[in-house]
Amino acid sequence: MRLAIDLSKKSIEEGGGPFGAVIVKDGEIVAAAANRVTLHNDPTAHAEVMAIREACQKLNTFDLSGCELYASCEPCPMCLSAMYWAHIDHFYYANDKNDAAKIGFDDAFIYEELDKPQEKRNMPRVQMLRDEALKAFKRWEEKTDKTEY
Amino acid sequence: MRLAIDLSKKSIEEGGGPFGAVIVKDGEIVAAAANRVTLHNDPTAHAEVMAIREACQKLNTFDLSGCELYASCEPCPMCLSAMYWAHIDHFYYANDKNDAAKIGFDDAFIYEELDKPQEKRNMPRVQMLRDEALKAFKRWEEKTDKTEY
Repeated sequence: MRLAIDLSKKSIEEGGGPFGAVIVKDGEIVAAAANRVTLHNDPTAHAEVMAIREACQKLNTFDLSGCELYASCEPCPMCLSAMYWAHIDHFYYANDKNDAAKIGFDDAFIYEELDKPQEKRNMPRVQMLRDEALKAFKRWEEKTDKTEY
Repeated sequence: MRLAIDLSKKSIEEGGGPFGAVIVKDGEIVAAAANRVTLHNDPTAHAEVMAIREACQKLNTFDLSGCELYASCEPCPMCLSAMYWAHIDHFYYANDKNDAAKIGFDDAFIYEELDKPQEKRNMPRVQMLRDEALKAFKRWEEKTDKTEY
């Protein structure tokens, strides 16, 4: 965790957001990353996402089962969902979402949005062409040599 | 949307997941991507995330305000959160999450997890060293030349 916090501090001086994350497997660090949203022009480049990508490259897998994540701040809904997709076992965090909100990072807004029924969310959505898209899903279902995840 | 669906079909033949996404600004396509989770060993490489990354690189920004997204399938919680962080205006989708669940992609599990109180979630979490991490947030607050997002 101290490394994750150090990365969050270093990131500030480098011009990134104040967040760091470290992934550990079997007691060894497999990834250590910082927020790169503004530096990389990538709104998905949160520290946790960067660390997941790095760990997957290093371990040559898309499945981080058996790994734990240390985040200098409580993961936002995007990062938490990414951690589920990556099958992270469990995680530790230092600052929490209220601390983040106090310095201008309001993950709470996204949590509230996800909690709302779809028709009440801030981001309008329209379903269309479902029949055409279902053909792709049918093809996926029928394919015998696919890599599932 | 037809391009997003075509990308989802092409992705299956390329060995990727059956998902495509397209981002449009002022009536012009600025990004068109497919799921690359298994091909890139990146569990965050959903079509929507790939399209957001591509659009941000092309437009040289981390803010996609004024853009709309076309997804061949209803975005999962990770992608939806990423779309909020990217300030996507609104989106269109074809297959929905029930269609995805039927072919083995169960985003519903993550939605259920996010809905639960933290202590009841499947992924255990522990807060630690908050006092040390708060120093980084204080530094961020005090920094006058930071890039906020």
